[in-house]
Amino acid sequence: MTYQNVTIIGGGVLGAQIALVSALHGKNVTIWGRKNQSLDKARQRVTLYSQAATKFLKLSHQQLEQSSTNLHYLTDLETAVANADLVIECLPENRALKHDFFKRFAQIAPQKTVIATNTSTMLPSEFAEDTGRPTKFLAYHFANEIWKYNTAEIMPQSQTDPQLIDTFIAYSKEIGMVPLVIHKEQAGYLLNSMLIPFLQAALNLWGTDVANFQTNDKTWMIATGSAIGPFGYLDLIGIRTILAIGEADEQTDLSQPVYTKIKNMLAAGHIGVETGQGFYTYPHPAYQQADFLK
Amino acid sequence: MTYQNVTIIGGGVLGAQIALVSALHGKNVTIWGRKNQSLDKARQRVTLYSQAATKFLKLSHQQLEQSSTNLHYLTDLETAVANADLVIECLPENRALKHDFFKRFAQIAPQKTVIATNTSTMLPSEFAEDTGRPTKFLAYHFANEIWKYNTAEIMPQSQTDPQLIDTFIAYSKEIGMVPLVIHKEQAGYLLNSMLIPFLQAALNLWGTDVANFQTNDKTWMIATGSAIGPFGYLDLIGIRTILAIGEADEQTDLSQPVYTKIKNMLAAGHIGVETGQGFYTYPHPAYQQADFLK
Repeated sequence: MTYQNVTIIGGGVLGAQIALVSALHGKNVTIWGRKNQSLDKARQRVTLYSQAATKFLKLSHQQLEQSSTNLHYLTDLETAVANADLVIECLPENRALKHDFFKRFAQIAPQKTVIATNTSTMLPSEFAEDTGRPTKFLAYHFANEIWKYNTAEIMPQSQTDPQLIDTFIAYSKEIGMVPLVIHKEQAGYLLNSMLIPFLQAALNLWGTDVANFQTNDKTWMIATGSAIGPFGYLDLIGIRTILAIGEADEQTDLSQPVYTKIKNMLAAGHIGVETGQGFYTYPHPAYQQADFLK
Repeated sequence: MTYQNVTIIGGGVLGAQIALVSALHGKNVTIWGRKNQSLDKARQRVTLYSQAATKFLKLSHQQLEQSSTNLHYLTDLETAVANADLVIECLPENRALKHDFFKRFAQIAPQKTVIATNTSTMLPSEFAEDTGRPTKFLAYHFANEIWKYNTAEIMPQSQTDPQLIDTFIAYSKEIGMVPLVIHKEQAGYLLNSMLIPFLQAALNLWGTDVANFQTNDKTWMIATGSAIGPFGYLDLIGIRTILAIGEADEQTDLSQPVYTKIKNMLAAGHIGVETGQGFYTYPHPAYQQADFLK
């Protein structure tokens, strides 16, 4: 066994999912939230994800009960980290907020405590000094719906102790994740580094009217045997994310036809699975129909 | 019914596959080859692909027999095109060879004959004037193992009669293909336009030692539910193809670490499924083992 007492900083989407899955695998988990209000929301998320995880993992009522007793909620940060073996920072993607937290963490956490960031858009080296223990700090990144998409990307920064990576590999397995080691800092980790160029290529084919989105999806699904094509995937992650990535990248020309088309979709509320309408209409998108690949 | 008398120019990998599948669906097919020797090879390919297609499509012995009587082999070009409704050019990817063929075709083919090119690396506009009938000419592109990966990409050039696209849609369905209409000329068609940026992104993660290839494949397979990741796919198409694409693109810097690693693999004969060794070892690659995603 690696870490037993685990504290999750922030009970948002990912924080709640990591907390739940860790608790389901016998870890003693504390979710820290700034206010009671945010902890109430975290509890609601955990309940919601419990149902999805129970269904997907075919959990017994007993397992679910046990996980519930393993989960604690606190607003006092000092108490929350006082006995933690591992702290995973899952705050919103706000640079200043994260810097503040890591600096405070350095002051109050015991020396034994290992610290990880779940950031998806920043690199861990940016926060290494803040933590007061750069050898015990790395990035630890999960997908959404982690009981199903059970990847745990482990990304050290230059000062991380190599042994820490091995411990994170073991911890990931203990909580049912597939550990994926990234040897160097890489913006976007592995998944987005592959997914974004692919999705942008697909979007350009649609954006320049080379082919409609269904045709692109059919091409991909038949050629790769995948159950989903790029536009089905875009609906899952939400087209807003693609626009945000374009806006964040100075080299991206937002006057390209594809961005005009994306903005038109957003204006019409066609955001993706979330709103029931993206490229496809949900809950029964055309690409899941039997005759789509005919 | 659209075209009944179909002539395939060249009985190489794709020519033999298109001929076979058309014959299996009741078309009267002629394969033209320059010499008897090349036609012998075409016959061998058709026999080989018949076995694979029979297995995959669960064909009866009778269906196979019938397809055999639908298939003819000729070295005389004039006879081969004399009564053709449709001619599909499947010559090697050699520019001069194709220009010569289309010019000759223009002289000897009846006016009714529709003409298509199966080129994967050139654009149809380059040959439109050669054919003597630019309105009746487009690109018609298939994947490998077309009984299984049954995509038929239909790509017009600027002079193509729009009605011809509809006829190709119908013809594709008649021979068991999924028609994929590309509205404008697009180098790489749809599949390669999406696949190549994705594969190059994956190769770069491996080439710069960010993560090993297995880790990249696991990431992709778990996140997308695909049965194959980028490096499994690279083994299928052969790493030589990637090097060739890099070499053909003037903007590609071949001194990048990834190309050094690719060249080392090629020098060691690690070409892909074809040689039994690429990134993975065949016929039972690790990514197909039950514990790969654990």
